[in-house]
Amino acid sequence: MRFLVPFEATRPKTRLDPVLDADERAAFARAMLRDVLDALRTAGHDPTVVATRALDEGDVPVAVDERPLSAAVNARLGESLPVGVLVADLGLVTPAAVRSLVDAGRDADVAVAPGRGGGTNGLVVSHPDFRVDFHGVSVRDHLTAARDVGATTRVVDSMRLATDVDEPADLVEVLLHGDGEAAAWLRAAGFTLDAGDGRVGIDRTA
Amino acid sequence: MRFLVPFEATRPKTRLDPVLDADERAAFARAMLRDVLDALRTAGHDPTVVATRALDEGDVPVAVDERPLSAAVNARLGESLPVGVLVADLGLVTPAAVRSLVDAGRDADVAVAPGRGGGTNGLVVSHPDFRVDFHGVSVRDHLTAARDVGATTRVVDSMRLATDVDEPADLVEVLLHGDGEAAAWLRAAGFTLDAGDGRVGIDRTA
Repeated sequence: MRFLVPFEATRPKTRLDPVLDADERAAFARAMLRDVLDALRTAGHDPTVVATRALDEGDVPVAVDERPLSAAVNARLGESLPVGVLVADLGLVTPAAVRSLVDAGRDADVAVAPGRGGGTNGLVVSHPDFRVDFHGVSVRDHLTAARDVGATTRVVDSMRLATDVDEPADLVEVLLHGDGEAAAWLRAAGFTLDAGDGRVGIDRTA
Repeated sequence: MRFLVPFEATRPKTRLDPVLDADERAAFARAMLRDVLDALRTAGHDPTVVATRALDEGDVPVAVDERPLSAAVNARLGESLPVGVLVADLGLVTPAAVRSLVDAGRDADVAVAPGRGGGTNGLVVSHPDFRVDFHGVSVRDHLTAARDVGATTRVVDSMRLATDVDEPADLVEVLLHGDGEAAAWLRAAGFTLDAGDGRVGIDRTA
């Protein structure tokens, strides 16, 4: 299946600035992007990166689009159906998690993988009239928009797809459950789990 | 399957004190407990609440045990196998999520449902030598402990099982994805989603 992977290439992951400088955020964001692309390809799909500026991801096609995320995705959604959308900052993604989204997309016109905090981290769209809007409480809005065009819906229950990595606390999940480039990047940068009291945190030793 | 549901009945959910007073925290914690018990029974299982003090949950048996959580669970783990453990503060739990844990437990001696932040929110145990320890990075420790006794393991990928409700930000998930007593309790208490800028928050109007 064709999959669009939107990627903020200009100033990625700004909310990680308490723990990573700008160059590190860019490198870590690229590592997560590669994990997402790898998971999609291992699961048998064809990703295209939709990026805010040119970048080289080897043999993965990159479409440059400076418009806001939703407009850039919607411009490409109707090219062929079904089509998937998966965000680029899933440091825990696996081929099995991708398959759970794609399987849900077989059972409904629009399958949605919620992100933590009301976002949408993945979609599989088979209905020609559905359009995305990633602003606000997008998981709720996407389900409403699907029903408004007469599309059936499914919601995927996956922690790996729900965990987009935005804030320092999210790095705990990558260190615990990630097994790709993003987790390796964090470990090489000196991050370890800090099991102190209460919720587990992160520590940096290098 | 027999399921143990540990419940902190004495001072539940203290980290919600920025948004709920002590009586409200107790009522909300009970609503989540009932959602967990309902999901287990709808999925065909037999829950027993393991509580720090006596409480009445209708026809669900309640065992009172003042020991720390891990000791109270371990004392009952070996009574019969397989046995499940599910934490009581899962405001998003569904019978389908319970089934995903139980299914994983059919494929391995110890199935683990991670909680966000390194915790363990669910277990299905079929190996007689496995014991729990909910302290620290328990999801990692449980997998290690299982392998140490020669048990095979499976990790369940479920956002609904991963989302234990500890902090005010977690209430967003209950309002968005919960459809049981806990979500109804929050709505009746005046909580709504606040879609402002950035991550979705909560608002209280009553």
